[in-house]
Amino acid sequence: MANLEANRWFTEVSDRDGSAFSLRINRKLDEIQSPFQNVEMYETTDFGNLMIIDGCTMVSSRENFFYHEMMSHPALFSHPAPKNVVIIGGGDCGTLREVLKHPDIERVTQIDIDEVVTQMSLKYFPELCESNNDSRATIMFDDGIKFMKEADAESIDVIIVDGTDPIGPGEGLFNHAFYTSCLNALRKGGIMIQQSESPLMHMPLLIEMRDAMTDVGFVDLQTLPFPQPIYPSGLWSSTMARKGEGFSGFREQDADKALFHTDYYNTGIHKGALATPNFMKRAFAK
Amino acid sequence: MANLEANRWFTEVSDRDGSAFSLRINRKLDEIQSPFQNVEMYETTDFGNLMIIDGCTMVSSRENFFYHEMMSHPALFSHPAPKNVVIIGGGDCGTLREVLKHPDIERVTQIDIDEVVTQMSLKYFPELCESNNDSRATIMFDDGIKFMKEADAESIDVIIVDGTDPIGPGEGLFNHAFYTSCLNALRKGGIMIQQSESPLMHMPLLIEMRDAMTDVGFVDLQTLPFPQPIYPSGLWSSTMARKGEGFSGFREQDADKALFHTDYYNTGIHKGALATPNFMKRAFAK
Repeated sequence: MANLEANRWFTEVSDRDGSAFSLRINRKLDEIQSPFQNVEMYETTDFGNLMIIDGCTMVSSRENFFYHEMMSHPALFSHPAPKNVVIIGGGDCGTLREVLKHPDIERVTQIDIDEVVTQMSLKYFPELCESNNDSRATIMFDDGIKFMKEADAESIDVIIVDGTDPIGPGEGLFNHAFYTSCLNALRKGGIMIQQSESPLMHMPLLIEMRDAMTDVGFVDLQTLPFPQPIYPSGLWSSTMARKGEGFSGFREQDADKALFHTDYYNTGIHKGALATPNFMKRAFAK
Repeated sequence: MANLEANRWFTEVSDRDGSAFSLRINRKLDEIQSPFQNVEMYETTDFGNLMIIDGCTMVSSRENFFYHEMMSHPALFSHPAPKNVVIIGGGDCGTLREVLKHPDIERVTQIDIDEVVTQMSLKYFPELCESNNDSRATIMFDDGIKFMKEADAESIDVIIVDGTDPIGPGEGLFNHAFYTSCLNALRKGGIMIQQSESPLMHMPLLIEMRDAMTDVGFVDLQTLPFPQPIYPSGLWSSTMARKGEGFSGFREQDADKALFHTDYYNTGIHKGALATPNFMKRAFAK
């Protein structure tokens, strides 16, 4: 058996999955206990910098593009003309950066409860924060649940829920009350997208989320699998839900001719992500 | 830092990737040192049974479907009418099972050098071996490199190279001499498919393989990414190469109406796997 020396490896044990994932580290860069959570930063040997929140791997330099691109571009290209976007969570600012690549978007408001996450990202993932000063961006540190509850009705085109797992500060982002707030705040045809865990490992939770979105009145759902190398199973998903009308494809031509840089996303990847694997189809059909 | 007790966890350290992956185990089921390699079997808490070869995770009950389906169906549906298939390696018999789901295939020959792998699979992955007695199947334990060198010219429709990494017994499956044997043994329009490592972590090796296939005379390549939860990065790939003519789509209608059970593969998944992520496109274009 391998023996991972604690000073050379960061290991996250996922008890619910019976698995653990480790990255080799050169050194610890930082650690701050915020009022909400413990945030650590490491320099790894092969994955660049690594952010840990409450012991769980969150973001690494090398592979965060999968997640941030799949939390933004599919939803934005599925909406006919998104202008006003809200990001709940997303304190590392990587999703914000992707959203701001869309030139027709007029306003993006990011609400993360924990300023420390953004401070750490500014320092150790400056590339994710390169659009923080875009004049269309508003970065708030506040309670996203309260923000959505108080948001004007029919005011938002796309809501991106870029939170942690449904434990700790992220817990309230996975329930009927929150989804109802999101539904009310969306304009007709508006889209909510949320990270929805591993389709391989967390199907009961994924189905619970989908059911809750339907329960509160969203009329159509799409769950998109994508690679997520540092999360359990390496396979993750985002789930999109639409208000008032079903999805009708996405703006393929706009996606094809988009002039911005992506590392994972393209039109074919979007279409591919809509091709639900059979094991997921069967689970959703139950 | 987490401390993984050696008697409760199996850990594979991937030195080349600076990462490690662990599965929690209930107990060790078996261990046999074959003339070629060390084969261990564990019962895990969440992934079913787990086969380890020379310290590397190979197959688990829970997630092997991704790999076995993506090593077989895309190549078989890309060939207009495959009749004679050869599998080099593949001793766990999971790829063989998938190939035999295609009713029009007349003959499948599997050549793995190590009989112990198949013995272990028969005992601990009986579901993967359920087609071993199919009258169309021939299971040989021999040197796959020699087999391909001596194969009749223009005799095979699809060659599936289901080997381990390019170290140890699998090493000879990743070079010009072997690819030349495969090319010679294929009929015109024939297809070779090989597991081609992680596109995220092992791009130089993947490009080397692609270049070698092109060097020996294959005329078209397709590299298909797919989830592989127990291998480094959780993202793996297979690379297909064609003899004499380029790929021209695949038999979509046949794939759509196929009556056999799959857990991952379907027509949309096949199309999605052909949509190369941008970071791969850029690497291949260099």
